[in-house]
Amino acid sequence: MSKLTDVPKRILIGRALRSDRLGETLLPKRVALPVFASDPLSSVAYAPGEVLLVLSIAGLSAYHFSPWIAVAVVVLMFTVVASYRQNVRAYPSGGGDYEVANTNLGPRAGLTVASALLVDYVLTVAVSISSGIENLGSAVPFVVENKVACAIGVIVLLTLMNLRGVKESGTLFAIPTYVFVVGVFTMIAWGAFRGFVLGDEMRAPTADFEIKPEHPGLAGFALVFLLLRAFSSGCAALTGVEAISNGVPAFRKPKSKNAATTLALMGLLAVTMFCGIIALAAATDVRMAENPAKDLIHDGAPLGADYVQDPVISQVAEAVFGHGSILFMILAAATALVLFLAANTAYNGFPLLGSILAQDRYLPRQLHTRGDRLAFSNGIVLLAGAAGLLVWIYGADSTRLIQLYIVGVFVSFTLSQIGMVRHWNRLLATEKDQAKRHRMIRSRAINTFGAFFTGLVLVVVLVTKFTHGAWVALLGMCIFYATMTAIRKHYDRVAEEIAAPEEPSDDSVRPSRVHSVVLISKIHRPALRALGYAKLMRSDTLEALSVNVDPADTKALRAEWERRGIDVPLKVLDSPYREVTRPVIEYVKSLRNESPRDVVSVIIPEYVVGHWYEHLLHNQSALRLKGRLLFTPGVMVTSVPYQLQSSEAAKKRARKRQDWAAPGSVRRGPAERAKETSTPT
Amino acid sequence: MSKLTDVPKRILIGRALRSDRLGETLLPKRVALPVFASDPLSSVAYAPGEVLLVLSIAGLSAYHFSPWIAVAVVVLMFTVVASYRQNVRAYPSGGGDYEVANTNLGPRAGLTVASALLVDYVLTVAVSISSGIENLGSAVPFVVENKVACAIGVIVLLTLMNLRGVKESGTLFAIPTYVFVVGVFTMIAWGAFRGFVLGDEMRAPTADFEIKPEHPGLAGFALVFLLLRAFSSGCAALTGVEAISNGVPAFRKPKSKNAATTLALMGLLAVTMFCGIIALAAATDVRMAENPAKDLIHDGAPLGADYVQDPVISQVAEAVFGHGSILFMILAAATALVLFLAANTAYNGFPLLGSILAQDRYLPRQLHTRGDRLAFSNGIVLLAGAAGLLVWIYGADSTRLIQLYIVGVFVSFTLSQIGMVRHWNRLLATEKDQAKRHRMIRSRAINTFGAFFTGLVLVVVLVTKFTHGAWVALLGMCIFYATMTAIRKHYDRVAEEIAAPEEPSDDSVRPSRVHSVVLISKIHRPALRALGYAKLMRSDTLEALSVNVDPADTKALRAEWERRGIDVPLKVLDSPYREVTRPVIEYVKSLRNESPRDVVSVIIPEYVVGHWYEHLLHNQSALRLKGRLLFTPGVMVTSVPYQLQSSEAAKKRARKRQDWAAPGSVRRGPAERAKETSTPT
Repeated sequence: MSKLTDVPKRILIGRALRSDRLGETLLPKRVALPVFASDPLSSVAYAPGEVLLVLSIAGLSAYHFSPWIAVAVVVLMFTVVASYRQNVRAYPSGGGDYEVANTNLGPRAGLTVASALLVDYVLTVAVSISSGIENLGSAVPFVVENKVACAIGVIVLLTLMNLRGVKESGTLFAIPTYVFVVGVFTMIAWGAFRGFVLGDEMRAPTADFEIKPEHPGLAGFALVFLLLRAFSSGCAALTGVEAISNGVPAFRKPKSKNAATTLALMGLLAVTMFCGIIALAAATDVRMAENPAKDLIHDGAPLGADYVQDPVISQVAEAVFGHGSILFMILAAATALVLFLAANTAYNGFPLLGSILAQDRYLPRQLHTRGDRLAFSNGIVLLAGAAGLLVWIYGADSTRLIQLYIVGVFVSFTLSQIGMVRHWNRLLATEKDQAKRHRMIRSRAINTFGAFFTGLVLVVVLVTKFTHGAWVALLGMCIFYATMTAIRKHYDRVAEEIAAPEEPSDDSVRPSRVHSVVLISKIHRPALRALGYAKLMRSDTLEALSVNVDPADTKALRAEWERRGIDVPLKVLDSPYREVTRPVIEYVKSLRNESPRDVVSVIIPEYVVGHWYEHLLHNQSALRLKGRLLFTPGVMVTSVPYQLQSSEAAKKRARKRQDWAAPGSVRRGPAERAKETSTPT
Repeated sequence: MSKLTDVPKRILIGRALRSDRLGETLLPKRVALPVFASDPLSSVAYAPGEVLLVLSIAGLSAYHFSPWIAVAVVVLMFTVVASYRQNVRAYPSGGGDYEVANTNLGPRAGLTVASALLVDYVLTVAVSISSGIENLGSAVPFVVENKVACAIGVIVLLTLMNLRGVKESGTLFAIPTYVFVVGVFTMIAWGAFRGFVLGDEMRAPTADFEIKPEHPGLAGFALVFLLLRAFSSGCAALTGVEAISNGVPAFRKPKSKNAATTLALMGLLAVTMFCGIIALAAATDVRMAENPAKDLIHDGAPLGADYVQDPVISQVAEAVFGHGSILFMILAAATALVLFLAANTAYNGFPLLGSILAQDRYLPRQLHTRGDRLAFSNGIVLLAGAAGLLVWIYGADSTRLIQLYIVGVFVSFTLSQIGMVRHWNRLLATEKDQAKRHRMIRSRAINTFGAFFTGLVLVVVLVTKFTHGAWVALLGMCIFYATMTAIRKHYDRVAEEIAAPEEPSDDSVRPSRVHSVVLISKIHRPALRALGYAKLMRSDTLEALSVNVDPADTKALRAEWERRGIDVPLKVLDSPYREVTRPVIEYVKSLRNESPRDVVSVIIPEYVVGHWYEHLLHNQSALRLKGRLLFTPGVMVTSVPYQLQSSEAAKKRARKRQDWAAPGSVRRGPAERAKETSTPT
């Protein structure tokens, strides 16, 4: 719509737009799967181990419950996937759980979900990186010996990458994710083949250990509680499932359908891998304990503090592929990489959610702007700082971090599903078409079951994990909730204050006259330009204003003024204390006092320089004066910039900054389609 | 000169001025002495000890050279005082050595002196505080056991005091300085009385120690070199003498005469105290060594690393007044306090010199403005940081720090005296009055001798101290010199670039038309006010501009615009990527492209909030846009501020900041007289 009358510029701008759009092509399913699934799929690297760890408390005999727990997790996974397939169809706008809860259950529920998700992003980084380091450590012992340092190193690396603006690339995500998936399936298949067909006895490296149970012979309520705890730990496999519901706009058309298909595929893969690993662990006699140092016994003696417990997936891989084999190495590397990519998704998701929250005025408005590098940077640094702190406090121990993780996930699952039930109820109240009603009733049934089941799991998680660390996550949620509420309150208060009145009230009395004042220190090009501009503006009065800081300089200025015959009156203010700000402010106020309906336009010549250190050397008193003038009623402040040669450098930098790719832009989808209205299918 | 038509305001401003002036009354001699003399007088607390330390290298027998070294220091002191009496008469403007060297020897010499003085200020802080801690430690052992921590604590305290803006008060300075002077004189008198009249044998706590000479039986050239080194160390007594020459404007009239008298009085006091302490040290058999741990022998064994060598002044005080006596305690406390005050003078002198250098464009211009709190704060933090670093590196050991100190002092002494010789030569070339010529020739003789003597000492100091640490000071000087040269070059380049052309060249073609554009996001009070102001300015075209970030919002804006019947056309720019900056910049450029002589005035409504955290929540995109527009040629940027209620708090804070008292204001004298022209007397 802009008036581009010259062809070269139009071509140039056209080009610029096209190059922007390059990175925002829509994702086909085969690329969308790895982009969104690295987070949920990577969960199977730690979830099976967590189940065994908890069971070991009751001793080796409790291991035979592991298939039942796997079944429970599978049922839960199918429930959640089925529920979210309803979500992506009903809310294709990418707002995800937050949007669903906010729309259907009100802003408090929405904000609760948002707080839970923000905490989850922090924990995704902390848990995924810790677990990735543990997996890498099973192949490269050095890494696990310097666990905390390596984990923080990876966080720093990811942070720098995202601050620099490395674009999330489908291909980059696809390779390790596919290698990981194919590797795990190969392992399961080869393990099954060796076990069933060849009849090999595969033994995990820990198969010879005995477990000293902390609470031997648990029974009754205590046993049920333990099994529930093991189940909550297994639920770690579900983390990240909600990611696709935030990314619908990035899919090719039909968006919702493709997203739902991808979701189903992802659930199927995750469940198969999870069960396969649990089964292989049982077949190869993997032994894990919460405190391996004292509870794992070898030849009658505890293993001691030096023993490093490898993740279940690497123990199984060692048993199936053989110790130090090339396939074992590849799988370990792919597992670590996919976990790091899962951490990276949080770096993309955090600003994405931030921009949605900013739109609803729960976070600073600038987060809403796409590609606002400064705002995104703050978010990324906050995320990395919080995750780094957790990694440091918890010694990069994924098992201890997972205790914090699951509660947030199930808060958002549950509220989102309850919201969906309301959503269908609302639609059903008006829908007449029987076929559509039928589909809606079916969807509502799925979501109702989902809400019930995930709510139950949330209660189980809260009860079994609260003292183990879930309270930390809840505390984090409360902090986010309180901060966002305060920000929203502030915005609401300001909006009320500045709301335009219907009738012009005494506050907005139309000003009647404008006095223009050009600030002059010396006669130089910037000053002449400012005078030239000021004369064009035809205000009621125009004068040049100088502050007498140094009598000799002022005398020279007056003489030069007359010599050049400048046709604007020059007024000089005395300043016995060499101040500039105060005399100008007082003078401006005195101009206005003559009539309250007068307006003063203060015109300030400024140089524009290109480097921050040059900036230190210039314009400081002009800046300070501008700052003070903004607090003076009835004043408008005009900067007339004069571009010095060195400012070219800054201009180029600013352009470059603008072309920066914000994290999360691939999964957010192209911007113009982000506002598609929601249509139930 | 300002139009103050209403009486209340005039009274108010009158009052404000008067309260400002309160702190800037002129100093009578009895107050000026302690204000300016705490630095030079406090030197006698460490200078005598330094002489003994160096002599001890050749063994106890070399101690008998100490009176001769004292004589040499006295002669030097008289020379320097006599020379500076000429300076203060010829240059009463307070520019001091820098002004003298700059005016008479050119900018390179001036800049060298300035660099030397800046280094000296840093070392004044480091040496005085370290020595103060050592003196306090002779009475309070805890302090000297935690030397570095205590010294840095005092630096932090002084820094905070000066950042807060505690005004240098004559009375505050007078008490400890007079207590110190009276204490030292009492000690000398009481010591002489006990020795000569009572015939008491006074013995210093170290009198029984033997000194193991590092180089026993030095003779010939080596001995001469050692004596020269001892003499250079004794020259530490001269540090701070130049302070009065920077403070002439603060004296009562006749300024120069009073300053010269104060200088003479100060020299006399310093010399008497210095000689008295050297004499008492000899009489009470004080034993000091460079490495007391291994070179001081008691009962045949070295004292070891635990031994803390007390300063000579406290050893003498202990011998004269008795160990732990009340007079001993008072003198130790007064000595420490006067040394801390000496350090504080550097906090005042540093910004003072900075403002003079800024006037000559060697430092950022804002340092020149009086009471520019931000700039002063940076200077203070820089000074404190550098001094703290030195204290930390050198373990708060005054002896080691003094090695760095003296070189800078003598660089400025020598260059200043050479400059004075030139000054008199220049005046003599034109002066006809025989009486005046006579006085000038006498002054020139004094300055010539001063230049020769201080130059000789400078060479001696450089030769004897270079490897002991003087190189660090020289390095510091080089860094200051290089930085200031670079800053000056930048200012010169900019001045050339912006110099106003005599003929209106093509660059400053008078603009012919102005297009005004008011940026609108919503219709609220700030936007209505900006529109009202813009209409007053009567530009050639006026339109409102909005960026279509969200189609729904834009639609609502258009509807509201029509409903209210706002008589300014509303233009909406499309922004597929939700950017604001780029479309506006492109549009503004396109407006100008129609005619290069057009000017665009971009008017931005802004809210003004009161707290920094509120600032984070607002105006970010406006700020960024303003930043980018400044780089766009032919644009003027106008802010129309709308003051929210919370902005009142910020206004009050800004006013409070402005009433802040800059360090060094007492010694700088009242501002209106600071520009007195130099008149030789």
